[in-house]
Formats: sequence, structure tokens, C-alpha cells
Amino acid sequence: MYSPSLRDLELEARRRLARPVYDFFAGGAEDEVTLRSNEAAFAQIGIVPRILRECGPPQLNLTILGQHCAAPILIAPTAFHCLAHPDGERATARAAAGCGVITIVSMASTVSIEEVAAAARGANAGTEPGLWFQLYVQPDRAFTEAIIRRAEAAGCSALVISVDSPVFGRRERDIRNGFHDLPAGLACENLRESASPGARVRKLVFSELTWRDIEWLRSVTRLKIVLKGIAHPADARLAQAQGVDALIVSNHGGRQLDTIPAAIELLLPIVTAVAGRIPVLLDGGIRRGTDILKAVALGATAVGVGRPVVWGLVSDGENGVRQVLNDLSAELARAMTLCSCRSLCDLDESLLHLPTGMRPC
Amino acid sequence: MYSPSLRDLELEARRRLARPVYDFFAGGAEDEVTLRSNEAAFAQIGIVPRILRECGPPQLNLTILGQHCAAPILIAPTAFHCLAHPDGERATARAAAGCGVITIVSMASTVSIEEVAAAARGANAGTEPGLWFQLYVQPDRAFTEAIIRRAEAAGCSALVISVDSPVFGRRERDIRNGFHDLPAGLACENLRESASPGARVRKLVFSELTWRDIEWLRSVTRLKIVLKGIAHPADARLAQAQGVDALIVSNHGGRQLDTIPAAIELLLPIVTAVAGRIPVLLDGGIRRGTDILKAVALGATAVGVGRPVVWGLVSDGENGVRQVLNDLSAELARAMTLCSCRSLCDLDESLLHLPTGMRPC
Amino acid sequence: MYSPSLRDLELEARRRLARPVYDFFAGGAEDEVTLRSNEAAFAQIGIVPRILRECGPPQLNLTILGQHCAAPILIAPTAFHCLAHPDGERATARAAAGCGVITIVSMASTVSIEEVAAAARGANAGTEPGLWFQLYVQPDRAFTEAIIRRAEAAGCSALVISVDSPVFGRRERDIRNGFHDLPAGLACENLRESASPGARVRKLVFSELTWRDIEWLRSVTRLKIVLKGIAHPADARLAQAQGVDALIVSNHGGRQLDTIPAAIELLLPIVTAVAGRIPVLLDGGIRRGTDILKAVALGATAVGVGRPVVWGLVSDGENGVRQVLNDLSAELARAMTLCSCRSLCDLDESLLHLPTGMRPC
Amino acid sequence: MYSPSLRDLELEARRRLARPVYDFFAGGAEDEVTLRSNEAAFAQIGIVPRILRECGPPQLNLTILGQHCAAPILIAPTAFHCLAHPDGERATARAAAGCGVITIVSMASTVSIEEVAAAARGANAGTEPGLWFQLYVQPDRAFTEAIIRRAEAAGCSALVISVDSPVFGRRERDIRNGFHDLPAGLACENLRESASPGARVRKLVFSELTWRDIEWLRSVTRLKIVLKGIAHPADARLAQAQGVDALIVSNHGGRQLDTIPAAIELLLPIVTAVAGRIPVLLDGGIRRGTDILKAVALGATAVGVGRPVVWGLVSDGENGVRQVLNDLSAELARAMTLCSCRSLCDLDESLLHLPTGMRPC
Repeated sequence: MYSPSLRDLELEARRRLARPVYDFFAGGAEDEVTLRSNEAAFAQIGIVPRILRECGPPQLNLTILGQHCAAPILIAPTAFHCLAHPDGERATARAAAGCGVITIVSMASTVSIEEVAAAARGANAGTEPGLWFQLYVQPDRAFTEAIIRRAEAAGCSALVISVDSPVFGRRERDIRNGFHDLPAGLACENLRESASPGARVRKLVFSELTWRDIEWLRSVTRLKIVLKGIAHPADARLAQAQGVDALIVSNHGGRQLDTIPAAIELLLPIVTAVAGRIPVLLDGGIRRGTDILKAVALGATAVGVGRPVVWGLVSDGENGVRQVLNDLSAELARAMTLCSCRSLCDLDESLLHLPTGMRPC
Repeated sequence: MYSPSLRDLELEARRRLARPVYDFFAGGAEDEVTLRSNEAAFAQIGIVPRILRECGPPQLNLTILGQHCAAPILIAPTAFHCLAHPDGERATARAAAGCGVITIVSMASTVSIEEVAAAARGANAGTEPGLWFQLYVQPDRAFTEAIIRRAEAAGCSALVISVDSPVFGRRERDIRNGFHDLPAGLACENLRESASPGARVRKLVFSELTWRDIEWLRSVTRLKIVLKGIAHPADARLAQAQGVDALIVSNHGGRQLDTIPAAIELLLPIVTAVAGRIPVLLDGGIRRGTDILKAVALGATAVGVGRPVVWGLVSDGENGVRQVLNDLSAELARAMTLCSCRSLCDLDESLLHLPTGMRPC
Repeated sequence: MYSPSLRDLELEARRRLARPVYDFFAGGAEDEVTLRSNEAAFAQIGIVPRILRECGPPQLNLTILGQHCAAPILIAPTAFHCLAHPDGERATARAAAGCGVITIVSMASTVSIEEVAAAARGANAGTEPGLWFQLYVQPDRAFTEAIIRRAEAAGCSALVISVDSPVFGRRERDIRNGFHDLPAGLACENLRESASPGARVRKLVFSELTWRDIEWLRSVTRLKIVLKGIAHPADARLAQAQGVDALIVSNHGGRQLDTIPAAIELLLPIVTAVAGRIPVLLDGGIRRGTDILKAVALGATAVGVGRPVVWGLVSDGENGVRQVLNDLSAELARAMTLCSCRSLCDLDESLLHLPTGMRPC
Repeated sequence: MYSPSLRDLELEARRRLARPVYDFFAGGAEDEVTLRSNEAAFAQIGIVPRILRECGPPQLNLTILGQHCAAPILIAPTAFHCLAHPDGERATARAAAGCGVITIVSMASTVSIEEVAAAARGANAGTEPGLWFQLYVQPDRAFTEAIIRRAEAAGCSALVISVDSPVFGRRERDIRNGFHDLPAGLACENLRESASPGARVRKLVFSELTWRDIEWLRSVTRLKIVLKGIAHPADARLAQAQGVDALIVSNHGGRQLDTIPAAIELLLPIVTAVAGRIPVLLDGGIRRGTDILKAVALGATAVGVGRPVVWGLVSDGENGVRQVLNDLSAELARAMTLCSCRSLCDLDESLLHLPTGMRPC
């Protein structure tokens, strides 16, 4: 079924999924204040377009940590794609590779990283597909190292370390629905060798993760290290000082600590703190090309897209995800053309009208 | 049917028009954030009236680019008037000429500019009717020049160049409704001689229009040149430096780039940038005489009215448009009287209470 | 029927009145933005109470232009009380006199000023009842002078000159309802001797009223002169310089120019401009004792109450109006006690938390 | 029935209680502006979490006026617990003692202070249970002194003096419901010896309470003296200068003066005024662990919880209250972990994003 926008696609997914599954994907922590604000905050930012510049068709491509990307879009890591479509993360990775964007494979993938990587390569996109691996660092360093080796072997070029999850947020929709676990037949395939096997991602979090573990990670792998879940500019400075390769500003889609400000509200202080020394990415609330334009104009290198990818999977597997990526790219291109901007470098704060609460003091 | 206000007139039109046609006229791009804000922003601006000044009945008249006008109101260019009433743009132009206000004829008119001009002259208003021609500049310069010659010959005194439409905005109501084209029997009569004839206005936009084309236009015609779709003060300065004769601050009624701020929010920075050297007009969201008063008090010379003209056409053709123009004029006159202001020159920012977000920094 | 608050009283009146009559009293001009804001703006102002001061029971009494008043409340002038209750303005004036507050009799009263004054004196309140007369100055000076003589003879001590009504606002509820006139049997009894007799108050407004007429009024009467409908601080300064005795900050209950800010938002700049040289009163949106406390804390000497008086009339004539006045007084007394304030002089801005938009720049 | 959050627990209590009883507990004064704002204001404050610090499991414990507490939570004094559950305040005190938090027993308790104290000691929590006694000081000093002696004898360590209740607020739900009194069989057991015995707490308030009475209280007891109902920073300074031991910032749950700002909005100016010399507590609107985190980060030593305790009683007596306290503690611990904070001392304003209206000028 054809959907004119990602918002329609979500409505369609809500109709098609069992309620507990829809709620697992769509819900957030506690009162879902952050969840709602992620989308709402983008509408509060105005774009003040430029006109009549000689610019030609917009160029969306860029390089992120050495990887060529067709658009400033990444597949944000989300769990359990097989709940959305039987092909699961295979479909997601094929679509992303075909569109030339990086997939961040979730540690809680229902397809093993090796199979995801094979699927991505099978997309025959001409270039090596961009694959990053999202990692919940485990207290068992041997297991952690083993999974890093698997990610390396599968061709991942970066580890995305979740730093916002010393414990899991309280997702009350899941509690109400009794959604605790994957159904029979599905499992977190990347965790089979762990000391605590089984499907329960909830066991994965490591409440004593510290900056020392980040140092240790650096010592055991040559993969790029990206921290996901940065909210405070002071931590952005610490991360950059420690030699982290990139940051992802994120409130975990509103699924961890409720009442964190919207992701886009967190961005500017972090961009200012980092001052261009490392790439800053963002996820949370991206539903339109104009959202991407705003994030990039505020200093993000690129944005992650999470839930819409799931809705695309529900709609039509690989084709559905491709539609999501193509629609967002087309919307971004249209927005850039309407702003008389040729390349991502042309996007800066002079194009924006910020609400009072987001203006630098 | 008598309507106490333009808001009632729109409700009536919604009842009478087929939904896809209503949606074509009423809708905006993507999430329609800008569409809604155009009207809503006016209500956020307070008027703090003066009293007891010796002023006599209010004088609404003014001169715009040498053309005497009975009120600071123009017919903003909108497409496809024959969808609203069989007389189409003929009715609109007769009403406007009768009321002494300028009509900006759309390039996507369903009546040819020659017929529109004849209708306007037939209104017997005593003075030469004010006609401007809205132009989407075409890559085919011969065609562009030909249509300029037609506009000149028809008696237009200005070209209104759309500079906000290198591509068309994504109007999702039309996508949902399958509204792609004019029905059989209607056509864009100004485009018959184009290299790409046919009714499809969507083919008209020229994504590589630049400031050089504005220079070229200046070289091929002595008509006044007005740029429509200015949002950024930097472009207002460039336009003024290039010798453009007037500007129209506009977000295309929320139909192009979504999340541009409301037209009235864009106005003050542009008025400040232009500093009175050329007239600045505005369209977007005008539904009340107080809206006009606010725009003029913030520095606009006059305002364009788009959708309400269409609702007037639906209601009663020429009579309906005349009612719209008369009602707005009467409301403006009443508001001026209630502010103890005799002429448009008496309207300035000291009459306004601006919301925090619109105050100059 | 007993009503716990004025809001319930309005609901009851809405049930009991014919819709056109309810709408006449309740409605405002055009989109009713100002009408709604009058009430809503009070809720945006916080009270930060003091505690534990030695203050005894609160004293609400004060002197306004030499008239002792039991509370800082006046009956604001509203038209056509006989539409609300057969006793009309007689009931209103008896209740007010009994409660020790000033009645401002409307020029558009459905009972003559002489009868209203007799009713007020009949209330046997022990002191001379406070009566002011609201006047729409007429072009026919002889008629205007005649009616001033009647007000003087009836014992009025002040003329309240409406300065916000050079024309009437567009009240679209009345247009929709076809409410044009008083029904047979009712008339504006103060207008019987006018050059244009009849009930139509709409004919009363005088669009060329100026400061010269205020001077002339001063020359023909020794009554106090109060200007009603001041919104701009510049006019407050002019009025004070001209020797006017008091001002009423008012947007005419949202019935004249729509989108004037809420009355309480207009107050502080005017109080600042007048700097205590003459009393500043306010009407518009008073529904609670806390509203009165806020107005007085921002510098108002007293407040006028309009629509709630009408709802009281509908509910139970004189008794209903008395209930309104007693309830408001009791609520004000309770609020003062809860703020540890003994007298109106104790109320100042240090008790308030103003929203950002109302803070002095 | 299991409730995922305190908000669900309130919904359950609304279903189970008779409407007048639910409204008595849930309602506020007049228009309930303050009532609603207490909860809503917390959602306007953003938390910007830190990450990756070496902190171990969060420590919620602290000492308040010499009493060890397991969490920065107190049972705020609320009346009439026997209306919520037959065990009444006995159940509340047992749950609190078991959880290691202080109970502030209401003077309007439906169980005598002696029985409440016995119940608390029966909880066998290992340490002496924390009991404070909330007092409406009475004009009859002999009675007041007698009840203080009872509180001392029962083992209370502090008197919590209500200073915001010289009169009672107008709770219109109770008026509408005809809820005037306790039903037969229930009584305010702490008032049996008063000059005005009976259940009517409404008679308890003493409108002439002043700072002299606070001095007198100090002279007749060695209990700690805590003032409850401080809103204005000037009074916080006076209280601290008078030797008061602690303050509770409170608007009485929105039940006294309507339109006081939300409790959390009142906090920062008072914390600034007191400058750490005495503990500042807060009640009003606490429904989440993140609310507690925000209050502590803004300078509160601890928070009182009122209505949720009642909903817990309705749900399951002592067990229900224990669930409320455990849930709030667990939520606070989770929020602290998600902010990489080990102890309450780690919570400060650098973790918060304040809305414009709450920022220090």
C-alpha cells in the first residue's frame, strides 16, 4: 500500500501489527514525554530558505568515518526486526546497502551479524556496504571481545557503544501488555555464545560501564568507536578528549530516561562543545527531509532513523525500507533545492529560525 | 448565501466543492505546519489602539508601483479559478477592477491573460485596472519572452516572478486524492504556445533559475519586476541591490517548503533589511482586516489575498470575490477607526504588542 | 439554584436564556481572540503569597473619586438588563447599593437613569449609593448636554465616557443570530429625547469624538470625568495631562477591536505611565477574587464586573447580582487572608509571578 | 491489582472510591489551576543525563534533621486516611516505617497520634521510625500545648506547622458534592480534647497565626519546628532568621490559594534565599522518580508525597503504600543510574534544562 509520508506508514503498521508488538516498537519510557518531544521539537524550528543561487541538483552524499554514503542517513540500531517482517535484519541491510547508507546492526538483532553482513553484500550496490555494530558492553570481557571479533570478521567498520543504558528504561506499554520476551522461534542471534544465552536483551545491560571500559575497547579493536546516547555537552568534551571517533546524540528514542529534552534540542550545545573535531550524529524524531536539513544545519553530520525503518519493514520488507530511505532522501533533496542549497555544506544555522528556548544564551 | 466572515465563507466552500478540489485549494505541503501557522501567527500579535485623534473617515487608498489602489490589498496569484467557478479568472479580475485593487494573474490561469485583461477593463471602474502577471520563468527563453510580450500587450504593468519554486512542494492531500491534473475541458491557457503545452503546471518549474535570470528579465522588458517568495533578509538585500522593484514576502501559502515560519513572522527582518528603499508586500494567512492592519503596521505596503478569493468565487463568482474584497476593506477601515488612524501612514509598530518570539533581538 | 462559582453561574444562564440573547451578552468581536484572552490571561499570572503577618481580617473598603466603596468592585456598564430579568437595571442598582459598590449605569440601559437612581436609593444602604453614568457622546451637543443634566439630577457623581467606540465592533454571533434590536416593549430609556429616538444603540456611536469633546464635556459639567476604553499608555498620559479624573483600562469585553491584548496585560504599562496621579480601573475577564487581587497588585484601584452581573440577574434578579458581588468580595477577602494582607494597600507586584510576556522589559 | 505507575494507581482509586471521597482527595481550590500545574510543571523541566562515571549502585539514603531516611521521600500530611482504607493512618505509618521514610502525621488524622506511633513502631524496621506531627496552631494555647505534649510523648521528633491556612481554600468539588464532614463512626482522633471537639477540621484553622506564635511554639517545645506552606523567598528568609529548623515549599497540593505557581516553580528562589542554612523540602505534584530527581537537583533536601499515598491505601492498605514508596524509590534509583549519579549530592542544576520562565533572571 502506497503511503504519502512516513506518518501514514506508521498508521499502516499500527493497523497491521499485534498491539503488543506495535507498542514495543512505538513506545517509550514512563510518561513518554521525551518520545513525543522528539518529533514535536522539529516542528518548532523554522526554516528560512535562500533563493536563486546557482547550485544545480542537490548532492546528498558525504563521507562518514571514511565510508562513502549516498545520504546523511543511517539505519539506527533497533531490536527484533523479525517481529516486523520474516526477513528481519536481512531485509533492512539489503535495502540500506542498495541505497548506499550505513546500517548500524543492533546487538539485539534477530538475525546474526554474519547473516546481516552477507545480506548487505548481496545487495550488489557496487561498493562495500557500510555496516556498524551496536554493542552493549558486557561485564564478561571474554564474551564482549568474542562478539567484537565477530563484528570485525563480518566486515563492520565501527562499534557503536550504547552509553545511555546502564539499566533499561521503564517501558510501561510493555508492562501493561505483558511483552517480556521474543516469541518461540526467534532469538537474539548475536548472543548465542554469551555467558547468559537466550533471547532476553534485558539481561544485557551493564550497569557499571565506565570511561575505563571505553579505553579497554580501544585497546582490543581497531574498529572506529562511536558513543551512542550522548546528551550532556560535558560528556561530549570528555569523549572527544578520550579519542572517541564520533558521537551519536540520542535519548534512545525516548525509551530510557523520560523527560530528557528532544534529541534536536540536545544537539547545539554538543556541537558547540565538540567544535568540529569529531562527527556528531543524531537520532530521535526524524520523520521528514526537513528534519534532516535542520539537524545538519545545526551541525549534525548525519542522522539515524529508527522506527520508520521498522514501519517500512512491516509494510513490505526490503522494499518498504527502501521506500523509507528513498522518501527521506527525496524529501531532503527537495528541501535543499527549495533552500537553494547544493550540498550539505551549504546547510547552516543562518537558514533556521530557532524557538526562544533553543537559542544560545 | 451570506457569510459573516471569511472563515464562514471557507466552510461554505468546503461544503460545496468536491473534496479533491477543496483540498487542492486549501492544502499545503507535507505536515502543513506552515499552512496553519500563517493564520495562527496573526492572532498572537496584539493591537494596542489609540483613541480620540482627529482623523475623519479612514483612507485606505495608496499607490503601489505607480498604480493607484483603493486598498492595500492585491489578488494573490492562485491557479485554476475555473475549478471554483465557470467564469474563473474573468470573474476575479472584474471584481478586483471594480473594487480598485490590483490582480496578480497566475501563469497557471485557466483563462488566458488576454481574456482576463479584457474582463478587467470591462468592469468599467473608471481607471485603468491594475494587472500584474505572475511568471514561472522557463528554461526556454523564447517561450518566456513570448509570454512576457503577451502580458505586456494585455496591459500588465508588472511581472511577479516566483522565486520559491525551483521544484514543487509535496502536497500530500493531492497525492492521497489522486488530484494530478485539470479535468477535461480546462487548461492553462497561458501555456498553449509553450514548448511543453498542456495543462500540467507541475512541469512549469525551472529548478535552475538564478539571479542571472532576473538580470536577463530586466533586459527584455520594461515592466516592473517583483520577486515573490522572499523569506530571508539576505535575499531581500540582494534583490534590492539588483534593482528589483518590489518584494512579496511569502511562503507560497504553505504549499512549498513546510515549516517556513508564518509569513507575518518573516516580515519584520525583511522590512528592516530593505529599509524602505522598495515596497515590501506580504501574502499568507490574511483573513481579517486586523491582519492587514498588523502587516502594514510592521512595514508591509500591502497584502495579497489568495484562498479567500477562491472561496468567494465558489460562493458567487464575481459577486463573491467582490464581497471578499469589500469585507476585508470594511474590516480594515473599522480597525483603523478603532485605532484612531486616518491613513495607512498612521499604522506603525507602536500600535502592536509582539509575542516574545517576534521581538527584534 | 446555588452556584459554587461565577463559572457555574454562566453555565446556568446559558441554559436559561434564548441563544441569541445569551450570545448577545456572552459574545465578542470577530474571532473572539480578545474575549477569550481576557479570562485566560489571569490564569497565567501566579500569586506568591506571604504568611504569618499580623493583619486581622481583610479590609476591602476604599474610596474611589470621593465615594466610599465596600470593595474594589464596580458594576461595569452593560446594556439591556431587562433582557436578563424583568427588573433590569433596577435590580442591578439595588444589589450594588446594598453591597456598597458603585454602579456605572449604561447609556443603553433598558430602565431610565431616573428609575435606576430611585431603585438604588431604595436599597437603604445607609449611605448615598454610588452611581456613575456611562455616556456615548453624541454629535448633537444639545442632546448630549440634556442627558448629562439628567445624570446630574439623578445623583450620578461621574460620567464614564466610552472612548473605544467610534464605531461598533463586528459581533458575528449577533449577525448569525439575526439579533439586531430590542424586542417590542423594551427600549433604551435614556435615549427617548434624542434626535434619533428608538432602541437602536448601534446608532449611538460618534465616529468623530476627539480630545476636544473631552474638553467640552469638562466645560459643561462638574461631574467627575472618567475615560473608559484606554489601552495605550500614550493615551493614558494624554488623558492625565488633560485633567481627566480617572481611567478605565478596558477592551470593551472583547466586543470592539478583536486581538487587543487581555485587559490585565494592558494594565501595567498604563499604571506605569500614569504613575499614581489618577486612579486606574480595569474591566475584562474578572471571574475570581484572585483576579481582583492580581489587578490591584498590578496597580488598579478597582475592577469593573460586567457579564457576571448579567448572569446573576438571569439567575435571580437582585438576589443573583448580590450573590455575584458577595461571592467576589468573599473570594477576594479569602485570597487576601491567604496572602497575609490586611488592606488593598498591601497588594503589590511583589506578590505576583508574571509570565515572560508581561514582564517589564 | 498491579499498576505500572502512580498514574494508573490513581485511575484505579477513582474507579473504586465513591465520587465525593475521590474528589475530596483529588480536588483543589477554585479553578484548580495550581492543582494541575503541580504535575505539569515537572514535565517542562528536562534532565540532561551524564554517563559512564564510576558510581556503583545509587545511594538514596540521607539524614533529615538528624533522622536517617532510606530515601528523600516523606509521607506528606493528608487528612482522613480511614476514608481510603479501614486501617487508615496505621497502615500508612507501618508502610513508611518499613520503608525507612518519615511519616508526617496529619493533625486531621482519623487515627490518634498514639495509635499511629504504635503502628509505626510495630513495623519492626530495626530503627526508630521517623514521625513528625503536622499542627494547625489553635487560638486556645492550652489545647495546642496539650496536643504538642501528645506528639512528644508519641515519639514525634518535629512539628510541621501549617502556615498557609489562616482560612481554608474553596474546594468547589466538595461544595458540589455536598462533602462537608466525616461519615458517622469516623472522627479526627487528635482533636477529641479540643475546646471544639468533633470531626470538623474546617473549624481548625486559626486566621490570626503570626510569627509571634512561631516564637511561642519554640518556647514550649524542644521538638524541631518545620514550617509548611512557604511560597515566598522573603518568608523563607524570615523563617530562617527566626531559627526555624526546616521549610516545606508547598502550595498545599493546590487546595488553598488557587493560581499559586507549581511547587517546583517556587523552589529555586527559596533555595537561593536560604542558601543552604536549613533544609528545604517540597511537596506538590511528585508522581515519578524523575520528579524527585529534579526537586533534589534544584536544591530540595527531600520531597513529600501526598495523594499517591492515599491511592496506595485505596489499592491495598499498607501493602499499597509500600508499593508507592518502593516504586518511587526504584524510579529515583533508576533515574540516578541513568544520570550516572551515585548519591543525592551528585544531583545539581547542571543536570537540568529549565524552561525559560524558571531560569534565574
